[in-house]
Amino acid sequence: MTTIFDQLESNVQSYARSFPVVFDRAEGAAIFDGTGRRYIDFLAGAGTLNYGHNNPHCKAALLDYIDADGIAHGLDMHTRAKAEFLQSFKCHILQPRKMDYRLQFTGPTGTNAVEAAMKVARKVTGRHNIVAFTNGFHGVTLGAAAATGNQHHRGGCGIGLGGITRIPYDGYLGSDLDSTQLLQKMLLDNSSGMDAPAAVIVETVQGEGGLNVASAQWLQALQAICREHGILLIVDDIQAGCGRTGSFFSFEPLGIQPDIVTLSKSLSGMGLPFALVLIKPEYDQWQPGEHNGTFRGNNHAFITAKTALDTYWSSPRFAQDVQRKAALLHERLTAITELAAPGQIHTKGRGMMQGISFTQTQLTDAITTRCFESGLIIETSGPDSEVIKCLCPLTISDADLHAGLDILSACTAEVLSEANLLAAAA
Amino acid sequence: MTTIFDQLESNVQSYARSFPVVFDRAEGAAIFDGTGRRYIDFLAGAGTLNYGHNNPHCKAALLDYIDADGIAHGLDMHTRAKAEFLQSFKCHILQPRKMDYRLQFTGPTGTNAVEAAMKVARKVTGRHNIVAFTNGFHGVTLGAAAATGNQHHRGGCGIGLGGITRIPYDGYLGSDLDSTQLLQKMLLDNSSGMDAPAAVIVETVQGEGGLNVASAQWLQALQAICREHGILLIVDDIQAGCGRTGSFFSFEPLGIQPDIVTLSKSLSGMGLPFALVLIKPEYDQWQPGEHNGTFRGNNHAFITAKTALDTYWSSPRFAQDVQRKAALLHERLTAITELAAPGQIHTKGRGMMQGISFTQTQLTDAITTRCFESGLIIETSGPDSEVIKCLCPLTISDADLHAGLDILSACTAEVLSEANLLAAAA
Amino acid sequence: MTTIFDQLESNVQSYARSFPVVFDRAEGAAIFDGTGRRYIDFLAGAGTLNYGHNNPHCKAALLDYIDADGIAHGLDMHTRAKAEFLQSFKCHILQPRKMDYRLQFTGPTGTNAVEAAMKVARKVTGRHNIVAFTNGFHGVTLGAAAATGNQHHRGGCGIGLGGITRIPYDGYLGSDLDSTQLLQKMLLDNSSGMDAPAAVIVETVQGEGGLNVASAQWLQALQAICREHGILLIVDDIQAGCGRTGSFFSFEPLGIQPDIVTLSKSLSGMGLPFALVLIKPEYDQWQPGEHNGTFRGNNHAFITAKTALDTYWSSPRFAQDVQRKAALLHERLTAITELAAPGQIHTKGRGMMQGISFTQTQLTDAITTRCFESGLIIETSGPDSEVIKCLCPLTISDADLHAGLDILSACTAEVLSEANLLAAAA
Amino acid sequence: MTTIFDQLESNVQSYARSFPVVFDRAEGAAIFDGTGRRYIDFLAGAGTLNYGHNNPHCKAALLDYIDADGIAHGLDMHTRAKAEFLQSFKCHILQPRKMDYRLQFTGPTGTNAVEAAMKVARKVTGRHNIVAFTNGFHGVTLGAAAATGNQHHRGGCGIGLGGITRIPYDGYLGSDLDSTQLLQKMLLDNSSGMDAPAAVIVETVQGEGGLNVASAQWLQALQAICREHGILLIVDDIQAGCGRTGSFFSFEPLGIQPDIVTLSKSLSGMGLPFALVLIKPEYDQWQPGEHNGTFRGNNHAFITAKTALDTYWSSPRFAQDVQRKAALLHERLTAITELAAPGQIHTKGRGMMQGISFTQTQLTDAITTRCFESGLIIETSGPDSEVIKCLCPLTISDADLHAGLDILSACTAEVLSEANLLAAAA
Repeated sequence: MTTIFDQLESNVQSYARSFPVVFDRAEGAAIFDGTGRRYIDFLAGAGTLNYGHNNPHCKAALLDYIDADGIAHGLDMHTRAKAEFLQSFKCHILQPRKMDYRLQFTGPTGTNAVEAAMKVARKVTGRHNIVAFTNGFHGVTLGAAAATGNQHHRGGCGIGLGGITRIPYDGYLGSDLDSTQLLQKMLLDNSSGMDAPAAVIVETVQGEGGLNVASAQWLQALQAICREHGILLIVDDIQAGCGRTGSFFSFEPLGIQPDIVTLSKSLSGMGLPFALVLIKPEYDQWQPGEHNGTFRGNNHAFITAKTALDTYWSSPRFAQDVQRKAALLHERLTAITELAAPGQIHTKGRGMMQGISFTQTQLTDAITTRCFESGLIIETSGPDSEVIKCLCPLTISDADLHAGLDILSACTAEVLSEANLLAAAA
Repeated sequence: MTTIFDQLESNVQSYARSFPVVFDRAEGAAIFDGTGRRYIDFLAGAGTLNYGHNNPHCKAALLDYIDADGIAHGLDMHTRAKAEFLQSFKCHILQPRKMDYRLQFTGPTGTNAVEAAMKVARKVTGRHNIVAFTNGFHGVTLGAAAATGNQHHRGGCGIGLGGITRIPYDGYLGSDLDSTQLLQKMLLDNSSGMDAPAAVIVETVQGEGGLNVASAQWLQALQAICREHGILLIVDDIQAGCGRTGSFFSFEPLGIQPDIVTLSKSLSGMGLPFALVLIKPEYDQWQPGEHNGTFRGNNHAFITAKTALDTYWSSPRFAQDVQRKAALLHERLTAITELAAPGQIHTKGRGMMQGISFTQTQLTDAITTRCFESGLIIETSGPDSEVIKCLCPLTISDADLHAGLDILSACTAEVLSEANLLAAAA
Repeated sequence: MTTIFDQLESNVQSYARSFPVVFDRAEGAAIFDGTGRRYIDFLAGAGTLNYGHNNPHCKAALLDYIDADGIAHGLDMHTRAKAEFLQSFKCHILQPRKMDYRLQFTGPTGTNAVEAAMKVARKVTGRHNIVAFTNGFHGVTLGAAAATGNQHHRGGCGIGLGGITRIPYDGYLGSDLDSTQLLQKMLLDNSSGMDAPAAVIVETVQGEGGLNVASAQWLQALQAICREHGILLIVDDIQAGCGRTGSFFSFEPLGIQPDIVTLSKSLSGMGLPFALVLIKPEYDQWQPGEHNGTFRGNNHAFITAKTALDTYWSSPRFAQDVQRKAALLHERLTAITELAAPGQIHTKGRGMMQGISFTQTQLTDAITTRCFESGLIIETSGPDSEVIKCLCPLTISDADLHAGLDILSACTAEVLSEANLLAAAA
Repeated sequence: MTTIFDQLESNVQSYARSFPVVFDRAEGAAIFDGTGRRYIDFLAGAGTLNYGHNNPHCKAALLDYIDADGIAHGLDMHTRAKAEFLQSFKCHILQPRKMDYRLQFTGPTGTNAVEAAMKVARKVTGRHNIVAFTNGFHGVTLGAAAATGNQHHRGGCGIGLGGITRIPYDGYLGSDLDSTQLLQKMLLDNSSGMDAPAAVIVETVQGEGGLNVASAQWLQALQAICREHGILLIVDDIQAGCGRTGSFFSFEPLGIQPDIVTLSKSLSGMGLPFALVLIKPEYDQWQPGEHNGTFRGNNHAFITAKTALDTYWSSPRFAQDVQRKAALLHERLTAITELAAPGQIHTKGRGMMQGISFTQTQLTDAITTRCFESGLIIETSGPDSEVIKCLCPLTISDADLHAGLDILSACTAEVLSEANLLAAAA
């Protein structure tokens, strides 16, 4: 059955190369191929399926909605589905956190939300420059790609990517450099060559960049600098948000209040295309329709997103359970790192976006390939694919979580052992 | 119930301002507000609902798929849903037309497809410049916005938009200028200032630009120039494709074979976010994952899109019916123009994307507002919103089509008559 | 003696390839090589030596100045030399023409003056776009190169050149297209894709572009459009100014009053590096030092430029003589064109920047090479080097003018005759 | 006599504001105003007059050349003057240093040389990005301005300046950060966001940036990184070259061999406009005329530059004398800093481009103003004009050097004393 893909699908496809089977159905943390084989999914749509495949609450609500001829597509007109989502978002997310944001539904992709966030920041400030960080990933349309660090994606653009000043992320040069000091010095220096920025765009954990974690202290310093210089602080919470780190927004425990937040991926609750930009009211200076797009405000996603909010965010229980699993995950990953000689591998990340970083970067592909053969779907991240990243559904059962980690542990041990034998033989 | 929108939704919202009610459900050409009031929908998701709201075939297939835990989100992995879509697209679209394209599923927005098309053209040719046309609309992310003509959207970007040479569209200066001659002269002229283009991006009918129609002769000349100079021809068929002009692709009767085609809007058949780039195999030079995105390959949309292809494009009947309705539409719009003094208003467009262009641009808003009050949803297009555009579902019943046009005719007559009275009084 | 050039000079050198001798001294319209051979100079520094090599008035003044330890370099400080130049420029140029401009002395190159002109227009208007024309040449530093049409120079930049909208020059598509109508339509059209321009930059005769001449009517229409839309009109008079067309400014008889004028080349009177931007006082909104440079305000050039103004522009006699010679030049060039079959070659240009345009572009190099062998230095221009351009000193004696044209006539006849023989033989 | 300046000269003028007199003549280190008042010149054309005003050797040679009708302007044709300059440059500069460079004569401004250097690096490597440093100054035409750090100059451009990655200069964050490590890490990191650079452009001493000095170790590390990654190393030696730091090139004692070097300012020996790019032969990949300009190769400057080379660089004596004076300068500046409380002021710079840096930046203007009143012309540099910079002619007599420093010392003492009194009173 792969014939039709080989015949017709563009060479651009990527994940299908790592997992060369045809998938058929899925539920929770499990995904099944056409032969019925069950895989535990530690990729979960690259962080899109925080509530699992076909989350039963979302699924039921969506079936009801479609069955009743609920509006599937309404441009950005008012619909009941949108009203109900707004109500839930206000009630379960904004009000409990004492947050005051306007919601912009952009085209239903993360990159579109990032483009909108960057645009409105430029518009509000009248400045064109935006500060982005080493190893940041924000999307591949031209505006977002300029902020993205990855050369694979930048190089594909075929045209100069401008309007960005790149600053080292927290810890980029080890503990020697506090890069907020560099930023501050350049902003205060009239001939630093840094044009006054409209915004800083930052991920609190760099998902694609290799699970690099920014400290609360560094982020607070960053925010203070932004406030001092009239720079808007954009947190790109597309991968780290929606509960992935143990709170709805990744920045909640970090003592910062971004001016703009981008959300997408798991926001719809069921993997449907959806994206949202939160903007402090004073910066919501859009003209009507200035940033538009056919699919902004996906009504099916309003339904499933509202259901996910009602189900998981009306009490602290879900977040607490995520935190519990994150601790468990950390413990087991740490145990795996002890399989190797000190310094060879170590854990990285925060909450339920943790992984293992390898010094010998060629090993990670061997491990993930072996995991897939053993029934675990898991992927790498980082500039050299040197980090194996666990992004399983937050709703995963403890049994599946342990089973997945058992596979990862065994495959890592095997590959490391083989590598050591080879090294000894050489 | 509008309160929550006023409280929380960004000022960027636009259509909700024209149609200030909350919509609840919809089927076919009808959309219903919360009070149960029925509106005939001549906007149809700005061309996204060619097969009507909640098309029963698509709806049934989608309900079955969700109910069976079909994969909702699978990144760009192989899924059964994708395989079946590819099979139908090959069987009903490519093979009957003797077309050979690779399919790239981009992030599910038109602008993302345009960005991918422009990128791959730049990559393949190693050139950075792209020719776009006056009044073209291709999206609002930075790469696509550069090709878009509209200042409202360009200005919102807050940063220079480069890499585009703008050429007048067919008929832009009346019959005096054949702009393909200008393009050809500039390409042959070593000091014209036009950098060698990677691609030309063109709509055969400019939907947002005011229903401007390119002639077959002009498009053929354009294609000949592209072939001569090693320029890729991109047809942006996002609004005009999927049957809107009476054939699946808008360019089928026009004697051109684009190198790259972008599709979105009605492709999913049911209004779900979806976008596709067709690339001639020799130009499918992407590296794996070079243009990526979380929601590329929306599996729900694969299901509904496949159903739409199987239902409407396995025989010529549907296309024939669209052509029949287009003739009817033209006849009735022509009759409406006869309400006014000669030269004041005239019909524009092609197939089922026709409308009426007004010299007194201030009248169009008055007419569409009155239409809405009378139960018809219809919008304007063009640089001064001077064209009232009929974009009703292609599956609309003749009764609804006539009913909608009756409202349009009556409201136009009223507004013109009042304007004449005012003019006479002045 | 050419060895040292071959050893050390960069491959970028160009004119030395056409005239492969070592020149030693020069006076008036004559230049002498190391062997004492005399050449008549119809290139004259590409229009830099309007008053001849080592003009005796300028030379005497400069010798006196240097001998007296007049300041050679004074940054942009006040010097006596500058004061005297300003006085003469006011008295002989501005006042008689009732012009009111501020003078900015930029770095002493034409391209630097163009960069300054474009910058101040962008600064004053707050707009970034600038309209430039097909076949325009404005220099090769990045800002000026963006406005320049020539691919040879554009391609050398190795980076995207932005911020320019290219419009066809007068007559670019024959009489079918009045390109000011295109410009006007695009400016009035809210979705034309043309961002509001800060300025239009135009040459009244395109010297490098092939001696294309803009009509008074076209330029007046251009100016009217600029005024209507708040666009500054920049006339780049670097090659056509300083008397070359028969008046000090090339635009004097054309009924326009530019907002900004760039001058360089012959301004110093003796070929010394010098450049000047004239800015209407209301647009002289520079901050002190905002556009700077070490050599702005070349004091030696102030001395020679003042002398040239005093000598040639204090009465109408010089301009009248230039006009007389221009008529003579036109008559003789026309006679040369009659050597060929109709349509093969024709005269182009205006004033003392006229030439002959060839359909068979390969002939021009053969002719100029043969001219050089016969003691005449003359060069080509135009996108395909298809125009032989006469740029002799305006002070040339009638005897030398005729002698040079005799050579040109004879060489053209020979080459055409040989080409016809070859064609007949083929 | 200042009236004419006020009437006619653009507001862009800057130095004339600091030194509001009209200068008349000058010789050596002395410049005289119209009243005959003598000033010692510690500005010296911002480093353009290393050999003093109207250097007698240069002056004599130039008078002879002009008198004999030597070619003043010859585009880039071969002239005797050019040949002789090339011969001297080869004999006195390249051969003794075992350097192998091709010479490109660009338009006679530093910014033009920088534009050419950046262009050829982009052309040779096929890359568009260039690394420049905080506080770097390279000129104000668009290409060069992008590399320049100063916001005053950047902001004047009115358009986005792209194609540059900014890296901290040596010592920018104190000793905590070795910025070559940052550069190396970003180059090795596939998702750092730094596009592969064509070149690094660096000053060994940042003249405009505040006399910041790069260490040999840092520059060697920089060069090693360039070699490793196929990046061309451009040293912008426009201000620091031509003997200013005690050797002809500023980088001679620093253990680096740049691929490209830009020279201008003092190269002509007498303050005439002149600029030169040195390019390693393997990178001299220009097409003929690809970077052109009317005044490239200023023949008067060839004469004076050759004379300066023959006079000052045919033996080590001149360089040794410069080093002696530099030591003397350092000693005296150090003594001046002892006037103040520790940490308030300190010396900066290298060779004969040293100065005094102030913590209280408002004092420097007061001091230079008072110096001018006392007969010394001296200016500030640095982002906040916080550094008083001594750039006197290298040929200055010890008497004038001491006299100038006496004035500086006295004025500094006065201003500091007054400031302390004010502070005490507050």
